[in-house]
Amino acid sequence: MTGSIFETDLDRNSANYVPLSPLSFLARTAAVFPDRLAVIHGPLRRTWRGTYARCRRLASALERHGIGPGDTVAVLAANTPELLEAHFGVPMAGAVLNALNTRLDAATVAFILEHGEAKALITDREFSATVAAALAQLERKPLVIDIDDPQGSGGDLLGEADYEAFLETGEPDHDWSLPADEWQAIALNYTSGTTGNPKGVVYHHRGAYLNAVGNTMVWAMGHHPTYLWTLPMFHCNGWCFPWTITALAGTHVCLRRVEAKAIYDALADHKVSHLCGAPIVMGLLLNAPEAERRRFDHKVSMMTAASAPPAAVLEGMAGLGFDVTHVYGLTEVYGPAVVCAWHDEWSALPAE
Amino acid sequence: MTGSIFETDLDRNSANYVPLSPLSFLARTAAVFPDRLAVIHGPLRRTWRGTYARCRRLASALERHGIGPGDTVAVLAANTPELLEAHFGVPMAGAVLNALNTRLDAATVAFILEHGEAKALITDREFSATVAAALAQLERKPLVIDIDDPQGSGGDLLGEADYEAFLETGEPDHDWSLPADEWQAIALNYTSGTTGNPKGVVYHHRGAYLNAVGNTMVWAMGHHPTYLWTLPMFHCNGWCFPWTITALAGTHVCLRRVEAKAIYDALADHKVSHLCGAPIVMGLLLNAPEAERRRFDHKVSMMTAASAPPAAVLEGMAGLGFDVTHVYGLTEVYGPAVVCAWHDEWSALPAE
Repeated sequence: MTGSIFETDLDRNSANYVPLSPLSFLARTAAVFPDRLAVIHGPLRRTWRGTYARCRRLASALERHGIGPGDTVAVLAANTPELLEAHFGVPMAGAVLNALNTRLDAATVAFILEHGEAKALITDREFSATVAAALAQLERKPLVIDIDDPQGSGGDLLGEADYEAFLETGEPDHDWSLPADEWQAIALNYTSGTTGNPKGVVYHHRGAYLNAVGNTMVWAMGHHPTYLWTLPMFHCNGWCFPWTITALAGTHVCLRRVEAKAIYDALADHKVSHLCGAPIVMGLLLNAPEAERRRFDHKVSMMTAASAPPAAVLEGMAGLGFDVTHVYGLTEVYGPAVVCAWHDEWSALPAE
Repeated sequence: MTGSIFETDLDRNSANYVPLSPLSFLARTAAVFPDRLAVIHGPLRRTWRGTYARCRRLASALERHGIGPGDTVAVLAANTPELLEAHFGVPMAGAVLNALNTRLDAATVAFILEHGEAKALITDREFSATVAAALAQLERKPLVIDIDDPQGSGGDLLGEADYEAFLETGEPDHDWSLPADEWQAIALNYTSGTTGNPKGVVYHHRGAYLNAVGNTMVWAMGHHPTYLWTLPMFHCNGWCFPWTITALAGTHVCLRRVEAKAIYDALADHKVSHLCGAPIVMGLLLNAPEAERRRFDHKVSMMTAASAPPAAVLEGMAGLGFDVTHVYGLTEVYGPAVVCAWHDEWSALPAE
């Protein structure tokens, strides 16, 4: 557009540039809805004010331990509040979150920690046997922080500090910044390595922001969803839902173990509105014994990926009160990239 | 992050760069929902397939007339399908849409056409008296295209061609591209000029995309809204709703004149789900004589701007079945920038 009246220098070098980053969702939600419920984990309840303060403490504590821009912070944890907080606290320090699959063996965990150059590892004691064996294989040890969840099933403490004690070393009003550039890395996720060593996929702030917002549109989520963590947060950063639910000032219902009774209890007790999961989660719900089931009157939206579920499964889920949306994606595209966008006229067709 | 494993050249200079642009909404909606209703205008009905073809024709016709990147295309029109199409067809040619306020006088229209360097002007014959006087003041005449809407109230034809004939000169499968850079201009809007000559505000594709998506989140719009065009599209590009409604594969209900009877008819006949407007539109609805009112059973969401409406107006609107959201903004920020985000506990408070 040379010579055009529209020729400007407005771009990311401009003084008015605001980078796209999902970190802004947390700041906005904590400012506008400080007293709304952010996190449920067993008997634990935390507001958005409280969750934001904990994320700021985490960023601050990491910085005090010399971790900053370009550094990797690995987390090996179940779907507990600590992993949710790491989705904000780690990048608030400028660092990159590497959430690890809890089902990997020690050799693979060691490979990833080494390849990803993790400077710190936050790890739930339930996985201490694997993690201790992985750490033993490393030449350069990261800073290790233990998650000691009262709902966990024990295990050794391996690290320099417990997560809660570590947070205490950080400031709850820590002064953090958005990244200077929205293309800066926010997360590092490893593929399962079925064809060799796991391969690292880097997510940037821009992509995380856009996919988090895309989820709200594709799923017509509305304000304040109550989201159940059946999908692992380590899996493509939970398809960006740690950021999506936060953007909508919703409530994260954490879940250590994906079991039918715990899911039905959460649906009925917390009026869960949304959950994601592999087809196996639907099988779990459909095949649960009567004693583990709970009745719920509200509609629950479920997003499932992989190959399309058979008609019988979809019919069974509809009978239980679930509205199922089918998506497909992969690690390289932040999770779901393709959605089966429902056409109203399909509702009149036979299930098959 | 020098020396970091996350150092990449991934940015807008990368081969994989996809610019943020609301033009992608139209391509996606036309591909996924080609047969859904896109536009209602009086007795006229158009699908998304048909609307997309018309927008491509417009881009193609403009290019054949030598209009391209960096050129301004002005439109002076009521809220009719032509102005909606211009929100896509003009930038699909790489050009910049300058939607003009239909209430301006000839001298101001002439000032804007000259200052904005309009290469083309698409103008509804209803406003021909003003436009003819404005054109007479210009040294360099733009290409003039007349909109001859059967629902209009006459007026002279001023241009080289009628809009429909002009579209015929373009290809319905015209091969267009997203802008090379998302910071490229998509629209030019002039302020009202209360303190001197109107001042031009340039919107870029990135900002239009983000604000269009922001509308869906803030208003929890869901899929397939039916949107009534009470807010002028020339006003901050209708707060980006030409792009928002298209992104959601909704239906645009056009409206030449903002009158109580026409609004009530649209609400009842087309089951309008959303509309925007100044407080005066609420006054119009509240004060309409009984004969002009229609009953409707569904909830209608209305977004209003400017100063907060008095409690009596909000109570009256709630009684009629409207759920009112209050926003504030200005031309410089693509329309609404601040929203009154409802807190559930407020619903229990007295209206005052």
